[in-house]
Amino acid sequence: MMLDGKKLAASIYDQLSHSIKQIPDEITLGAVLVWGEDSPSMRYIRQKRRECKKIGMWFSLFQFEKNISQNELIQELEKLNNDDIITWYIVQLPLPEHIDESEVIKHISPIKDVDWFHPENQGKVMLADPSWFTPCTPAGVMKLMHEYDVPLPGKHVVIIWKSNIVGKPLIQLCISQWATVTSCNSKTPDLSLFTKMADVVIVATGKAYLLTHDMLGKHTSVIDVWFSVINGKVCGDAEYDSIISHWHNITPVPGWVWPMTVAMLLSNTLSAYEKQSRS
Amino acid sequence: MMLDGKKLAASIYDQLSHSIKQIPDEITLGAVLVWGEDSPSMRYIRQKRRECKKIGMWFSLFQFEKNISQNELIQELEKLNNDDIITWYIVQLPLPEHIDESEVIKHISPIKDVDWFHPENQGKVMLADPSWFTPCTPAGVMKLMHEYDVPLPGKHVVIIWKSNIVGKPLIQLCISQWATVTSCNSKTPDLSLFTKMADVVIVATGKAYLLTHDMLGKHTSVIDVWFSVINGKVCGDAEYDSIISHWHNITPVPGWVWPMTVAMLLSNTLSAYEKQSRS
Repeated sequence: MMLDGKKLAASIYDQLSHSIKQIPDEITLGAVLVWGEDSPSMRYIRQKRRECKKIGMWFSLFQFEKNISQNELIQELEKLNNDDIITWYIVQLPLPEHIDESEVIKHISPIKDVDWFHPENQGKVMLADPSWFTPCTPAGVMKLMHEYDVPLPGKHVVIIWKSNIVGKPLIQLCISQWATVTSCNSKTPDLSLFTKMADVVIVATGKAYLLTHDMLGKHTSVIDVWFSVINGKVCGDAEYDSIISHWHNITPVPGWVWPMTVAMLLSNTLSAYEKQSRS
Repeated sequence: MMLDGKKLAASIYDQLSHSIKQIPDEITLGAVLVWGEDSPSMRYIRQKRRECKKIGMWFSLFQFEKNISQNELIQELEKLNNDDIITWYIVQLPLPEHIDESEVIKHISPIKDVDWFHPENQGKVMLADPSWFTPCTPAGVMKLMHEYDVPLPGKHVVIIWKSNIVGKPLIQLCISQWATVTSCNSKTPDLSLFTKMADVVIVATGKAYLLTHDMLGKHTSVIDVWFSVINGKVCGDAEYDSIISHWHNITPVPGWVWPMTVAMLLSNTLSAYEKQSRS
């Protein structure tokens, strides 16, 4: 069965839109973009802005020249930290080379840190703190599994990953749902040894067609989070066509987890507003 | 082969003792104990004090009556946070029932937080931040594996665990060493399926003799972190006698990982002093 992130995201937008209509205040998602040649960043930003507009949420873009200094950028973040209008904000990566990303993101206030860059927020994920938010892509994956009745307690989840902001939180989230979790990386000698035993494989590496149907057990579900572009064609980490033809649950690529990421971003923004207005 | 934490801890104490002699300042480990009927707490404290004394480190015990209120205790922690004499400090758990432990430990300053209770410190473990310390028991386990040439990159480590402060950091630390890591819990249907495939099994559950030699592959190393007491006898999570007789590497219980925990506690205390005096 196809795990349809687009359809699920659409139903989340409906709920969000309904909730936002009841709220007299404006809720605003901020986005910091240091202008470069990086067109995917601009595309991501436009998509987020479009979805915000649809559900009645405000979106403020703070765009800076490519030659902004690190200190100036940090000062701009401090302003956003103190700006009551901005519920929370994204810093769109990558930043230009003369700026130390890890230094800059330290200055995002933990309560406005959408992308879980701050160690305090990472710690809350590690502790699976139920009072806090879940980072957007991992939250989207968890929601997708929940809505499509992919059970986790007592099941074996194999996560093949590369990025701290996707792989590590997913490990913790699946553990907190009482799954047995195997974390694989590029040094794992024989991936199929693990994937064949898995009830669920989550793959987030950006390596095209790493996962093929012959590497799966009979009832393994596949969540394909990443993608890569080869000869102009967008490829998933999993070989979708052959895997779905063998009756596995799978998310298609491109585009079926990403809508969930954006939906969870806006859903988290609403929750952040509610938390802040209560405190 | 026996992985001898006692012997390794002794050599770490020698190095620490040598380093501390070169330092004109006093280095002080604090310990907060809310007096109860809990004799193991007092025993742990005494042991830490004894080891401090041996290597020339100061140890300050802050002992409070069992009926201290939560607010009073938090005020005492604030004092320790601001006390330059105290390098960092332990809050010995458990606390009496009228005190909310999770609320109290939030007030330990992250830079004095020996036991990694603060979310910011948990996040640094999750990110495997090399500029920071590693929590004591996990650090002891990693050091033991390193010193006994138990390799990790590309190897499969199975961690069977229960406690946030031991299991979760170990998962992250082994991942950061490029191991494939499987996290198992009490809902894992067939532990031996995983342990038989493992190069290393770390067991930290407090369930006596959970791991037996027939659950292991031919060359699996075993690190047994926890213990339990049954009919007055201290039992490991692993069946030591049968496992070592089958030529596996294993840490004996009781007492072979614990000395490493205390050694890493004092080693971290020295590093914390060095970090603080540099900043």
